[in-house]
Amino acid sequence: MSAPEHRYVITFGCPDRTGIVARIASFLADAGGWIVEAAYHTDPDSGWFFTRQEVRADSLPFDVHELRERFGRVAEALSASADWRVEDTAERRRVVLLVSREGHCLYDLLGRVAAGELDVDVRAVIGNHPTLGDITRAHGIPFHHVPFPAGDPAGRAAAFTRLAGLVDEHDPHAVVLARFMQVLPPSLCEAWSGRALNIHHSFLPSFIGARPYHQAHARGVKLVGATCHYVTADLDAGPIIEQDVIRVDHGDAVPDMVRKGRDIEKVTLARGLRWHLENRVLVHGNRTVVL
Amino acid sequence: MSAPEHRYVITFGCPDRTGIVARIASFLADAGGWIVEAAYHTDPDSGWFFTRQEVRADSLPFDVHELRERFGRVAEALSASADWRVEDTAERRRVVLLVSREGHCLYDLLGRVAAGELDVDVRAVIGNHPTLGDITRAHGIPFHHVPFPAGDPAGRAAAFTRLAGLVDEHDPHAVVLARFMQVLPPSLCEAWSGRALNIHHSFLPSFIGARPYHQAHARGVKLVGATCHYVTADLDAGPIIEQDVIRVDHGDAVPDMVRKGRDIEKVTLARGLRWHLENRVLVHGNRTVVL
Amino acid sequence: MSAPEHRYVITFGCPDRTGIVARIASFLADAGGWIVEAAYHTDPDSGWFFTRQEVRADSLPFDVHELRERFGRVAEALSASADWRVEDTAERRRVVLLVSREGHCLYDLLGRVAAGELDVDVRAVIGNHPTLGDITRAHGIPFHHVPFPAGDPAGRAAAFTRLAGLVDEHDPHAVVLARFMQVLPPSLCEAWSGRALNIHHSFLPSFIGARPYHQAHARGVKLVGATCHYVTADLDAGPIIEQDVIRVDHGDAVPDMVRKGRDIEKVTLARGLRWHLENRVLVHGNRTVVL
Amino acid sequence: MSAPEHRYVITFGCPDRTGIVARIASFLADAGGWIVEAAYHTDPDSGWFFTRQEVRADSLPFDVHELRERFGRVAEALSASADWRVEDTAERRRVVLLVSREGHCLYDLLGRVAAGELDVDVRAVIGNHPTLGDITRAHGIPFHHVPFPAGDPAGRAAAFTRLAGLVDEHDPHAVVLARFMQVLPPSLCEAWSGRALNIHHSFLPSFIGARPYHQAHARGVKLVGATCHYVTADLDAGPIIEQDVIRVDHGDAVPDMVRKGRDIEKVTLARGLRWHLENRVLVHGNRTVVL
Repeated sequence: MSAPEHRYVITFGCPDRTGIVARIASFLADAGGWIVEAAYHTDPDSGWFFTRQEVRADSLPFDVHELRERFGRVAEALSASADWRVEDTAERRRVVLLVSREGHCLYDLLGRVAAGELDVDVRAVIGNHPTLGDITRAHGIPFHHVPFPAGDPAGRAAAFTRLAGLVDEHDPHAVVLARFMQVLPPSLCEAWSGRALNIHHSFLPSFIGARPYHQAHARGVKLVGATCHYVTADLDAGPIIEQDVIRVDHGDAVPDMVRKGRDIEKVTLARGLRWHLENRVLVHGNRTVVL
Repeated sequence: MSAPEHRYVITFGCPDRTGIVARIASFLADAGGWIVEAAYHTDPDSGWFFTRQEVRADSLPFDVHELRERFGRVAEALSASADWRVEDTAERRRVVLLVSREGHCLYDLLGRVAAGELDVDVRAVIGNHPTLGDITRAHGIPFHHVPFPAGDPAGRAAAFTRLAGLVDEHDPHAVVLARFMQVLPPSLCEAWSGRALNIHHSFLPSFIGARPYHQAHARGVKLVGATCHYVTADLDAGPIIEQDVIRVDHGDAVPDMVRKGRDIEKVTLARGLRWHLENRVLVHGNRTVVL
Repeated sequence: MSAPEHRYVITFGCPDRTGIVARIASFLADAGGWIVEAAYHTDPDSGWFFTRQEVRADSLPFDVHELRERFGRVAEALSASADWRVEDTAERRRVVLLVSREGHCLYDLLGRVAAGELDVDVRAVIGNHPTLGDITRAHGIPFHHVPFPAGDPAGRAAAFTRLAGLVDEHDPHAVVLARFMQVLPPSLCEAWSGRALNIHHSFLPSFIGARPYHQAHARGVKLVGATCHYVTADLDAGPIIEQDVIRVDHGDAVPDMVRKGRDIEKVTLARGLRWHLENRVLVHGNRTVVL
Repeated sequence: MSAPEHRYVITFGCPDRTGIVARIASFLADAGGWIVEAAYHTDPDSGWFFTRQEVRADSLPFDVHELRERFGRVAEALSASADWRVEDTAERRRVVLLVSREGHCLYDLLGRVAAGELDVDVRAVIGNHPTLGDITRAHGIPFHHVPFPAGDPAGRAAAFTRLAGLVDEHDPHAVVLARFMQVLPPSLCEAWSGRALNIHHSFLPSFIGARPYHQAHARGVKLVGATCHYVTADLDAGPIIEQDVIRVDHGDAVPDMVRKGRDIEKVTLARGLRWHLENRVLVHGNRTVVL
């Protein structure tokens, strides 16, 4: 595929009132900005307005820093929430992946990157087991093994400190828990707020916590699912980015559910991660607006 | 469509061991029975075997009563569970529908019956509101209004007694809670065990109880669902017959979720009811085997 | 549900260039217009821009006629295509349904109207067979039987003339071929261009023409579908509004495919009709933009 | 996961008549065979019967060769079609993959094998471009580059001869065209009949041949699909094993359709290949029975 067009991406939320669209559009039009993609959403329950706009970089007479500064005045005038952003697609997205022993999500993501389908810079993969080191290195990506000793709170805290250091040196746009299986401590949930994505192997809020496929089998559900969500201090309760399901039946024992569910985990995580990295996901309370 | 072929339907569960299929198949073959459809399932966790067989009635030299008697000896020899059955498709299925004010499931079921797609005998529709009386009568079906006084336990108990009488006089193969919105008392759950079907407007076990679409909206899920299940004394916890989901997004307020979800409620209930009436659903613990 | 808010709906397409959004948004903002819902789409292949906007009627100081006149000047300045529109949600949508003998789509649509889910004014149902007269009249809607004599071109032409008269007296927003099974003559395709919707019982462009389920069965497909599209003089080749599919397997004979497919026909037609009546469907060449 | 149980798999088709199930089941029961999984299908149109049975190897007093010989007499007595089989799950499935430049299906299959989800022996990957050599070798699998010179019939014939040699030395259970993009000559279609699987990037029979996503975009469909089918001399017209679809909309340009479609290609091919290797797919005319 050809090189993607250089664009600036504006995302923005503020209390709804008349004239917001006109204000933003006029600001861009006055500068000659060519809007390539625009999406708007008004939430009637909260009275809140959201937008995401992609502008061709070469249509504006200034660079991203000046756009950010100038747009900041618009944002202020409209009482925007603090998380408004102006991003530059020329800045390649940096990603760090956290894994354990199960490799299906890792294989899937690395395959997408290698196939040129997901244009991101996977800076590192960190595993609490060494299992997935070889495949990671075969893709030319550094792998770090950080063991988490069971039943040793101090050891685990030290491991999280080391892991955080390995993550933070890359200042990543996304920290992906690709079936990491360890619960992040609240301090890291806070530090990586809005940047840490988890894939949970159930259709949340059903089957929170451990062994969701076993829970699903015991309940006798006819579909199993997966949920990609932002990590918060509440286990499996963060804002949902994407979900999907697949049909199972009485003939599916737990291992069959696991196998079928993995296909859903992979695509759900890949979609959620793509949207996150394209700045399509705006968080509002515990819900997401995907523009 | 042409008249369906006259068939006998055998459903059967027993502890698994070698030779069960041979025993049943030989029994039928020795009598000249022409098996039109056969399905088997072995549950490795419980070590239990299930089968459902459809046999052409005109291939056997005896009637359904004698088939039942003769097959009973096979069932006994194989230590079948008590709910083995031999049913005659010539006996038209009798159904009673329980409704409240929301008519989408009722309209859907009556439309399927009128269109010849669901060949059942709807003997009566009972509503705790009179709202759906006209459409029911337009289809030539008796409608009974049984009010359920709020905050009046004795009045409600009397209403359930009256409702049970109206249902039981038809000895129905299925009592369908088509968005009935009243919780059946344990005595009726027991009396109609394995015959009372409910449609719950969520993907269970998520969002049990009241206002599931409101719960779903608050949690920010990306799919809403519906569940057809057998009614038990545990609210929304009975064996699941069928489930389905439909995609929603941030633009869907609760009324949109309600509207989209209804399409799923309708087909999920219709499929579950069809399978139940065709004796495809075998209950094992709190799970179903749909053959 | 409560009465829907009174709104004006603007739909609009024009060659893409910078400043379009600003121009439209400023026009509305200058008049105090409160935009409740807005969607934009730029088609990079054709270089064409599309938008749909819903504005609260009570936020504007003038009525729909003056909005239409004023907005016309904006449309002209932006070289809009001829089919730009300003519609008033206070004007109830008028629909005429064309049917034959199969009633599942009719039952479904009438049920949705009766349940308050599809707020339209079904002015008449016209059938080339009398089969569906009773259910239509039970809903309080006039039914007209217009026979189409087989092998009699003159008789058929006369029938179409009579049918057109019965339709046109209502000046309907939509003429719905709800499994009508007769091919409209080119003159009516032209007269009702952009207003005549058909539901075809296959996933187009597969299985054009007669007996698509038989064609699907012969090919051994694993999913069957339905397509809601605008009627054009090219059989089953008009712009597609909506499609959906459902899984089938080797155990599904043609009648099973017909039965399963009907559930998809119903929802696909209902969704397509809703979007059409809400002015969400913009036609561009042989493709649709659904905003 | 634990080692799978050692089983024999019987697949079988014959003209339908009474007593077939009894005959097969009695044969197995008389030998003490423990049937772990059994599926039956009767095709009413053709009057043909199909079955697939999994028997625990340790329940029989003889080995697979003797089972094959003994069962052969049953097959003959029932006039079975020539493709009845008795397979031994202890014999690991051998697979050869044919690829071109696009790697998504290859990455997906290798990932499944590496994750232990698809327990097969990938003996070789053959590409008409060298692009995918590195990732193949990183998985420890031999890669062969066999160029196909454009516009050189003799050179292409020689390339196919070389490719056939590289494939046939492994006597593979499956030859998988994982987006191979070259049309097999009739001689290879014949030689690998029932063993060569292709993934076509459309919902067949729509969009046969080249650039199906472009065709789909031009037609304005609302879903794109993928089809896994057996290769025959008729291009994209062989028996369909599995299909799936994913939703697209007006905002999806061709590259978006390509990207979304790939997720469906991957799972459709993986499911079809799994079923083929588990001997679940019986071909009957141009249709498949998946048991």
